[in-house]
Amino acid sequence: MPHLHMEYTANLPELNADVALIRLNNTLVASGQFAAEFDIKSRAVKVQTFKVGTALGERGFVHVKLALLSGRSAQIKKQLSDSLLAVVHDLCEWPAGVEVQLCVEILDIDRDSYSKTAIGH
Amino acid sequence: MPHLHMEYTANLPELNADVALIRLNNTLVASGQFAAEFDIKSRAVKVQTFKVGTALGERGFVHVKLALLSGRSAQIKKQLSDSLLAVVHDLCEWPAGVEVQLCVEILDIDRDSYSKTAIGH
Amino acid sequence: MPHLHMEYTANLPELNADVALIRLNNTLVASGQFAAEFDIKSRAVKVQTFKVGTALGERGFVHVKLALLSGRSAQIKKQLSDSLLAVVHDLCEWPAGVEVQLCVEILDIDRDSYSKTAIGH
Repeated sequence: MPHLHMEYTANLPELNADVALIRLNNTLVASGQFAAEFDIKSRAVKVQTFKVGTALGERGFVHVKLALLSGRSAQIKKQLSDSLLAVVHDLCEWPAGVEVQLCVEILDIDRDSYSKTAIGH
Repeated sequence: MPHLHMEYTANLPELNADVALIRLNNTLVASGQFAAEFDIKSRAVKVQTFKVGTALGERGFVHVKLALLSGRSAQIKKQLSDSLLAVVHDLCEWPAGVEVQLCVEILDIDRDSYSKTAIGH
Repeated sequence: MPHLHMEYTANLPELNADVALIRLNNTLVASGQFAAEFDIKSRAVKVQTFKVGTALGERGFVHVKLALLSGRSAQIKKQLSDSLLAVVHDLCEWPAGVEVQLCVEILDIDRDSYSKTAIGH
């Protein structure tokens, strides 16, 4: 906890996913919501097969999902969501001629049934 | 919103994922549940490493997840689920000798903490 | 139902994902919680782009998500989570010099809107 997933469509060549994860993780640490930076586990996946809507025209998206152990307030979640969206917005020059949607979703992990261990830490 | 994810196992060679997403998006637009076709963001992933159950014999699956901003009724969700399953069922000739499970799941996105912006729209 | 997803970072070369899914499925069958072994649908994805925390040093993770039709008790979920974590822990020799986090998350699938059909079964 927390787990962050970033999906990005393959038509966004300027987006550097490694850099994106570093910046997103830094933002999570800076939020003060997480006791240990070590706990933040983030991954990015390039989406090769996608379709936005039904109209023609080139479109893409970046979707960030942040999964938190249940218990945080709606206000904290909204602040985290807004701060992650601001990071995504500034990740790169967005390609001209592509309609790009940027989204951040916060979801809860059931705290009671979450299990975890660390090796070599 | 909405976000659609389709997973399909690699042993279903007749399934055309691009065509699948077009048909699924068309079905969502036709449902009348979504104000703008532009909002529908769908992706498909071929699953290379999978295992269904524990018995021998070739098996596969297609799993569609539709994530909606919270607030829709159980009846609407069930209707969406049924209509997407009907589309998946008719996507292709299913291979003889493979037991294929087709599933549709509807889940809620927490509305209050969802953030979004659009570029170039 | 159930659906199991395993993500594992690309810096864990000793982890055999096919073997992992067989063992995880066997554990689910042995739990007695599922009427038919056929219903267990599991997949594994190697995560190529990831970042754990903000510090330098090599880190990785294995994250298992088990999605169940809603209705099971917190106690059952915790038992399933613990038993899956024990399986993950023993999957392989973990690489020296890598801090590896192993996690298991249980989540509910909305039962009322879940649709499913089977072909060739």
